Amino acid sequence: MADKNKLHLTAFMRPVSLHTGAWRYPGAFPDANFNFTHLKSFIQKLEAAKFDAFFMADHLAVLNMNEEALKRSHTVTSFEPFTLLSALSVVTEKIGLAATASTTYDEAYHIARRFASLDHLSNGRAAWNIVTTGNPESSKNFGKDEHMQHGDRYKRAREFYDVVTGLWDSFADDAFIRDQESGVYVDPKKIHTLNHKGDDLQVKGPLNIARPVQGWPVIVQAGQSEPGRQLAAETAEVVFCSPPNINAAKDLYNDIKGRASKAGRDPNHIKILPAALFIIGDTVEEAKEKRLKLDSLVHYDSAIASLSVALGTDASGFDPDAPLPTDIPETNASKTSQAGVLRLAAEEKLTVRQLAQRYGGYAGLAFIGTPESIADELESWVSEGASDGFTVTFPFLPQGLDDVTQRLVPELQRRGLFREDYTGTTLREHFGLPRPVNKFFS
Amino acid sequence: MADKNKLHLTAFMRPVSLHTGAWRYPGAFPDANFNFTHLKSFIQKLEAAKFDAFFMADHLAVLNMNEEALKRSHTVTSFEPFTLLSALSVVTEKIGLAATASTTYDEAYHIARRFASLDHLSNGRAAWNIVTTGNPESSKNFGKDEHMQHGDRYKRAREFYDVVTGLWDSFADDAFIRDQESGVYVDPKKIHTLNHKGDDLQVKGPLNIARPVQGWPVIVQAGQSEPGRQLAAETAEVVFCSPPNINAAKDLYNDIKGRASKAGRDPNHIKILPAALFIIGDTVEEAKEKRLKLDSLVHYDSAIASLSVALGTDASGFDPDAPLPTDIPETNASKTSQAGVLRLAAEEKLTVRQLAQRYGGYAGLAFIGTPESIADELESWVSEGASDGFTVTFPFLPQGLDDVTQRLVPELQRRGLFREDYTGTTLREHFGLPRPVNKFFS
Repeated sequence: MADKNKLHLTAFMRPVSLHTGAWRYPGAFPDANFNFTHLKSFIQKLEAAKFDAFFMADHLAVLNMNEEALKRSHTVTSFEPFTLLSALSVVTEKIGLAATASTTYDEAYHIARRFASLDHLSNGRAAWNIVTTGNPESSKNFGKDEHMQHGDRYKRAREFYDVVTGLWDSFADDAFIRDQESGVYVDPKKIHTLNHKGDDLQVKGPLNIARPVQGWPVIVQAGQSEPGRQLAAETAEVVFCSPPNINAAKDLYNDIKGRASKAGRDPNHIKILPAALFIIGDTVEEAKEKRLKLDSLVHYDSAIASLSVALGTDASGFDPDAPLPTDIPETNASKTSQAGVLRLAAEEKLTVRQLAQRYGGYAGLAFIGTPESIADELESWVSEGASDGFTVTFPFLPQGLDDVTQRLVPELQRRGLFREDYTGTTLREHFGLPRPVNKFFS
Repeated sequence: MADKNKLHLTAFMRPVSLHTGAWRYPGAFPDANFNFTHLKSFIQKLEAAKFDAFFMADHLAVLNMNEEALKRSHTVTSFEPFTLLSALSVVTEKIGLAATASTTYDEAYHIARRFASLDHLSNGRAAWNIVTTGNPESSKNFGKDEHMQHGDRYKRAREFYDVVTGLWDSFADDAFIRDQESGVYVDPKKIHTLNHKGDDLQVKGPLNIARPVQGWPVIVQAGQSEPGRQLAAETAEVVFCSPPNINAAKDLYNDIKGRASKAGRDPNHIKILPAALFIIGDTVEEAKEKRLKLDSLVHYDSAIASLSVALGTDASGFDPDAPLPTDIPETNASKTSQAGVLRLAAEEKLTVRQLAQRYGGYAGLAFIGTPESIADELESWVSEGASDGFTVTFPFLPQGLDDVTQRLVPELQRRGLFREDYTGTTLREHFGLPRPVNKFFS
């Protein structure tokens, strides 16, 4: 039953916690997000726990330009992914290094080259999280008044992927001869010039770097929209998604694996890793208290705006310390989102303040409990076909990370659910993914 | 007379030698260009010798698409600068890290962000070599059929510089409060939104990373054309140039320092570092023999094309082992270039083959001699106002680098011409350059 290669764990880092209250939690390093010494210790702990990858989120703008939220944001300053991950590659040996890079606001030649370079520097540990950049603020940093439309972004992303993978295949794996005697360094017959001319991109090539160690760095995607799912099914090898619960996760899992099969791919070669917040306590109650404590560190003024969005109605006039009013008007925005708030308020008996702080902090999928209770849940998810593992987000650092690496991971290992050591050296090997055949030389 | 802060040395790395025969020299590592272990040892030797900076050249295409030259090129594959320098930042402590980045084929927001990130990772050691990318092959890798005209490239470069430096100043140096108690992370009044709308660029800002440790990374430029000199005089803090001899160097030195004064700058805050090849022997004769040996490793078929270009006439029919014919036709191309070839042929009594191999390898400024004879020359250059130091290119590695760091540098130190240790921690401190005042917060 247990398959050590079945459950995969990546650490979703921004590069610390997604939770807006994380930096204020007792024991947290407030500057961890922008402190290389701390980040080095985090990734080394993740590697010691045999995580598949350190996965760096990214944005191409300062988010939350609302002043109340902005002044409380611990991710307003951040390292750029390629520079940070390249530095981290030197202080690690096995853990994968996933960088987010945009197909909307960058050049395919640059992206192909940087990932190839990171893959060579890390001896085959790079992954590309393909994003189309949803935040409209970004467009204004790149000379565009109007954000590119969703459908156009995905069309461009698909072409961009073809160009980048084509550029990675510029050199055959055995192109380099380096014979000092004859003076022949490279075999020109083993260099391919792409000459791509498509709707969105024109890129000649060849790329000026050898084929990546992994052939292609691992392809990661996060799309959940219709075109996002289809792009993932056609191209992704790891899918990062945000289902609210196990049933939604199963639907998504089956949908994406089914689409991958239809696209002619082996569904085992696409790993679905829902994102979740992990909070661990000695008891389930203690873990829940940690979460309430964490949520309480989200400032009410910035939190209430998030609740208003989720409810589809202005919540700023509600009594913060009372339950949610029973007469919330029907929304023209997302009815699913409003229903989620109402269900959460009823289930956990939260006040308006607590609800607001949940939405202002992190309101997605969460595993809150003891190492044993969480291991039970994860085992169910994987054995019932809801996921191939998880994209782990930490509530606060270093303690929340230590709880996962030192308490949850050993419990998973005891059950035979998670590797006790790496069996390969490349990220593809960690995930059990094949090395792609070169499109032009095979 | 001797001023230890007067002579500066940067190592010009591509990331190994510029010389096309370098990888074939006895004792050379043929794959050094693309081998992180070797590159790490090179930069650590340069740091032990107290070099100001490791300066990485770059191209945005595979050069030399002529098959004969291509198959012999040891730089056809190369790491991308930001990924390599970020990795090298982890294994060094003091030496500067200069990356080449193009204003023609990249986005100002990306460039500003990556240099800021490298500067933070390295604790203030980043430098930006601003290039406009002269190689027309590059344009085809970035969706453009036509290469941007020279004047247009420089106009865009000037605006790009303004935008990048403006983005670096997005945050005041004291913007970050990080008060866990009150929950205030950053002071919004200390964040500046650039809102740049110019002829070539529209960039809103703010940048999503704190102001660099150095305020701005050190600005390097290599322009020698009229607009290149003017851009350097207005913006550069280190100028990398290629005068053929000391007299040409003095003219260039005076011209750029004079232009800087006219632009209202302190000429001491712009360091002029001519590029030169250094070959060291026990005797001057031995050093010259090393050079002939090195040149002999350039393949004749690719070398003769370079000589033809320099002469402005087809040299492929000449007898390789005879002196240059006396009846070379007048050229419509560069008369200065042809005159240089004729002078070199006469002075060094070179055969056609040797001349071709010189031009196919490296035909620029070179210091060939003993540690003492070269130190004499460098002392003259600096004391006579021809340079503030040198951009050192190595003939082959590791030996050519070891000769400079272990034999020439100690001789310069004995004479009190070069630092015996770093006196600061940032690259600006190594160069004696001021930290720029924030444009928006002072």
